[in-house]
Amino acid sequence: MLEQLKEDVWRANLDLVKYGLVVLTWGNVSGIDRDAGLVVIKPSGVDYEKLTPDEMVVVDLAGNVVNGSKRPSSDTPTHIQLYKSFRKIGGITHTHSINAAAFAQARVEISCLGTTHADYFAGPVPVTRFLTKKEIDRAYELNTGKVIVERFRQIDYESIPGVLVAGHGPFCWGRDASSSVRNALILERVAEMALKTMALNPKTKKLSGHFLNKHFERKHGKGAYYGQDSD
Amino acid sequence: MLEQLKEDVWRANLDLVKYGLVVLTWGNVSGIDRDAGLVVIKPSGVDYEKLTPDEMVVVDLAGNVVNGSKRPSSDTPTHIQLYKSFRKIGGITHTHSINAAAFAQARVEISCLGTTHADYFAGPVPVTRFLTKKEIDRAYELNTGKVIVERFRQIDYESIPGVLVAGHGPFCWGRDASSSVRNALILERVAEMALKTMALNPKTKKLSGHFLNKHFERKHGKGAYYGQDSD
Amino acid sequence: MLEQLKEDVWRANLDLVKYGLVVLTWGNVSGIDRDAGLVVIKPSGVDYEKLTPDEMVVVDLAGNVVNGSKRPSSDTPTHIQLYKSFRKIGGITHTHSINAAAFAQARVEISCLGTTHADYFAGPVPVTRFLTKKEIDRAYELNTGKVIVERFRQIDYESIPGVLVAGHGPFCWGRDASSSVRNALILERVAEMALKTMALNPKTKKLSGHFLNKHFERKHGKGAYYGQDSD
Amino acid sequence: MLEQLKEDVWRANLDLVKYGLVVLTWGNVSGIDRDAGLVVIKPSGVDYEKLTPDEMVVVDLAGNVVNGSKRPSSDTPTHIQLYKSFRKIGGITHTHSINAAAFAQARVEISCLGTTHADYFAGPVPVTRFLTKKEIDRAYELNTGKVIVERFRQIDYESIPGVLVAGHGPFCWGRDASSSVRNALILERVAEMALKTMALNPKTKKLSGHFLNKHFERKHGKGAYYGQDSD
Repeated sequence: MLEQLKEDVWRANLDLVKYGLVVLTWGNVSGIDRDAGLVVIKPSGVDYEKLTPDEMVVVDLAGNVVNGSKRPSSDTPTHIQLYKSFRKIGGITHTHSINAAAFAQARVEISCLGTTHADYFAGPVPVTRFLTKKEIDRAYELNTGKVIVERFRQIDYESIPGVLVAGHGPFCWGRDASSSVRNALILERVAEMALKTMALNPKTKKLSGHFLNKHFERKHGKGAYYGQDSD
Repeated sequence: MLEQLKEDVWRANLDLVKYGLVVLTWGNVSGIDRDAGLVVIKPSGVDYEKLTPDEMVVVDLAGNVVNGSKRPSSDTPTHIQLYKSFRKIGGITHTHSINAAAFAQARVEISCLGTTHADYFAGPVPVTRFLTKKEIDRAYELNTGKVIVERFRQIDYESIPGVLVAGHGPFCWGRDASSSVRNALILERVAEMALKTMALNPKTKKLSGHFLNKHFERKHGKGAYYGQDSD
Repeated sequence: MLEQLKEDVWRANLDLVKYGLVVLTWGNVSGIDRDAGLVVIKPSGVDYEKLTPDEMVVVDLAGNVVNGSKRPSSDTPTHIQLYKSFRKIGGITHTHSINAAAFAQARVEISCLGTTHADYFAGPVPVTRFLTKKEIDRAYELNTGKVIVERFRQIDYESIPGVLVAGHGPFCWGRDASSSVRNALILERVAEMALKTMALNPKTKKLSGHFLNKHFERKHGKGAYYGQDSD
Repeated sequence: MLEQLKEDVWRANLDLVKYGLVVLTWGNVSGIDRDAGLVVIKPSGVDYEKLTPDEMVVVDLAGNVVNGSKRPSSDTPTHIQLYKSFRKIGGITHTHSINAAAFAQARVEISCLGTTHADYFAGPVPVTRFLTKKEIDRAYELNTGKVIVERFRQIDYESIPGVLVAGHGPFCWGRDASSSVRNALILERVAEMALKTMALNPKTKKLSGHFLNKHFERKHGKGAYYGQDSD
């Protein structure tokens, strides 16, 4: 079963390239086997085109490498912190995709301006606070995970499957590795759309609550009628 | 003949990907057989790369599935409403292409600023009003079709083959499925051009009426001389 | 020799697609055989991917089709007018590439803001005046050529191998069909660069005359030392 | 060993195309063999797709061609000047990539607005002064190298592996040809991100010093823990 997860996570990492979300080694995807308590993640600094399923690194929730000859992504502590706090997620994606990163750098949350956004995020995509000097100097990647979790104290992580880390970039999650990559793609497109919408009309109002809910619920609610039953 | 229509609609859906108008499952194309009163449309939530002509869903104008094992696009009631009201159209395309969606989100109509626009749209591309809470809560997709038709009361749908649904995105139409996709591509390019034109000169005036008419008529008027006679 | 020209013009038309300058049928390239007084041009409204060298249309300088079974591009009279007035050019390209068309729609000339521009255009890329109602109503395409020529009365067409037709888009030229396409690509890139430069700093000054001349001359002047001697 | 360098420099030049950093012949990459005192560089004005490793030109540090039948890039004196002054670099890349060139044209330095930037550049990417008329008229390319070196008098070229030449475009460097191309790609992405960040929030503050240092040091410092040990 871990072999399947390694294959899934490997393929999800390649999708980052396919969707144009990364260049060089600027992103990483992980997946978790909740029963085994093991996380599979991309090795640090390895080119996507050279990556093989075997090179995926397996770590436990304490961050120890339990399988694999390479060092895991330097962002591994962030991933683990999110898996510990967001108990229903099965995959995480981090990228530096340009439009989402621009919002993260500008520290501007992405308001819900239309149904493309509402189809996947049931409200604005939030921005974290900056880490303090102390949080940066020690256990930086772990603390990055902690400020994300802090930001979601009043937010349902299942309804808002992504965040912008201030001055850094987006982290997204989903039920598995592949769906977290899809959410990273959606966030990038929604960010570009929002940037252009604000350029056209800086006073654009956010979508009304019932319009937003309608779109989110028809895809994700109890009476969802988008897609096929087998989905 | 329905088999041919399914093949045409299938191919038109694939063109959405080829032209860069969609990612994931963010768009749908349909075509109608006017004599049979049957609409062929993309199944809901199925990836374009896995799509086969056989999977295209056939519905009647009451929205009943008459052929196909999959659920039709959730936007099917919008398509049907347009086919009922715009009697001369043979195909409809809906996308969330970024630049057209930005105008829809900003609720800014696309003025005719140049001949690229005038070659295909004989005036501004209009924005609908927002749906009311009541219209959203019940028969949302049908009502989306109705506000489009309402917006075209004073507009000739043959001269303006597309619309921006407020807070949502573009719907385009044409004489068949394939031409509706072409209009969706044209709208997206014209939208990007208009956005950049306004960035360069916010006071850009719309094209004069005779200049606009000249370009529209040389392609679509009685004395059209663009293209080949067999077109 | 005409066969070679048809092949060259055909290939130059395909380069429009390769360079991302056109979608659908939004552009055309022609080339001239000065000795024979014959122009080879793309047929009107034919998809690039279906185009064959044999389908290229041959017209004389009076606009009569002397070879080819298809109707020539509707812009043929514009091309002919330019060949008649700009005696040293061998090829012409017309596109609706997005950034250049945005400048044409905004009626903003492209100032020379850097060496990328100066390497190919020895000054600003000018915008024509709008055509009058009378000029539009009768012999529109011919008059489009005439306003371009009018705009170049005080400008050396060999140093500025392109123009923006107001409310329409760019026309570029060169020593042959292929070099006119290259100039159309350069204009599009330079336009995007200029648009972004102005967004960053609306008060950006144009490049100084001696800096501009240095770059233009090292590629095109008598003592040019860019490229290989065989170029 | 020179054969290997020619192969490396050739491949690095092709990467310019692969990464979308150049069109036509708008860029060049060189590499140096420090022991032999020889620089390998792209020939001037040759299309990337026709380029072969054998055509790479070998010059000494006085600028004399010691191997190769073609003329070296016209920017060769700039490269040589940088190799002479920046003693630890092994490769140089020059492009006219759109976003970086826009900053160079606007004469706006690229502030460090996020960790994508901080991962590779330990501070703002500086802009040179304009060359004087005298510097342009005589030994222009050599003087371009000199103003770059002048700009780095107070800046560590190893921590800031790139520069924007005013009114021109970016030059980047690295430990070899390939890493200089990677830095050129990074600069282009960082420039696009910065441009969009400023559009979203013109008052965006630059990243704090300790946040910047953290990211730069985890990749490049003594205790770097990004990537694999063999990197």
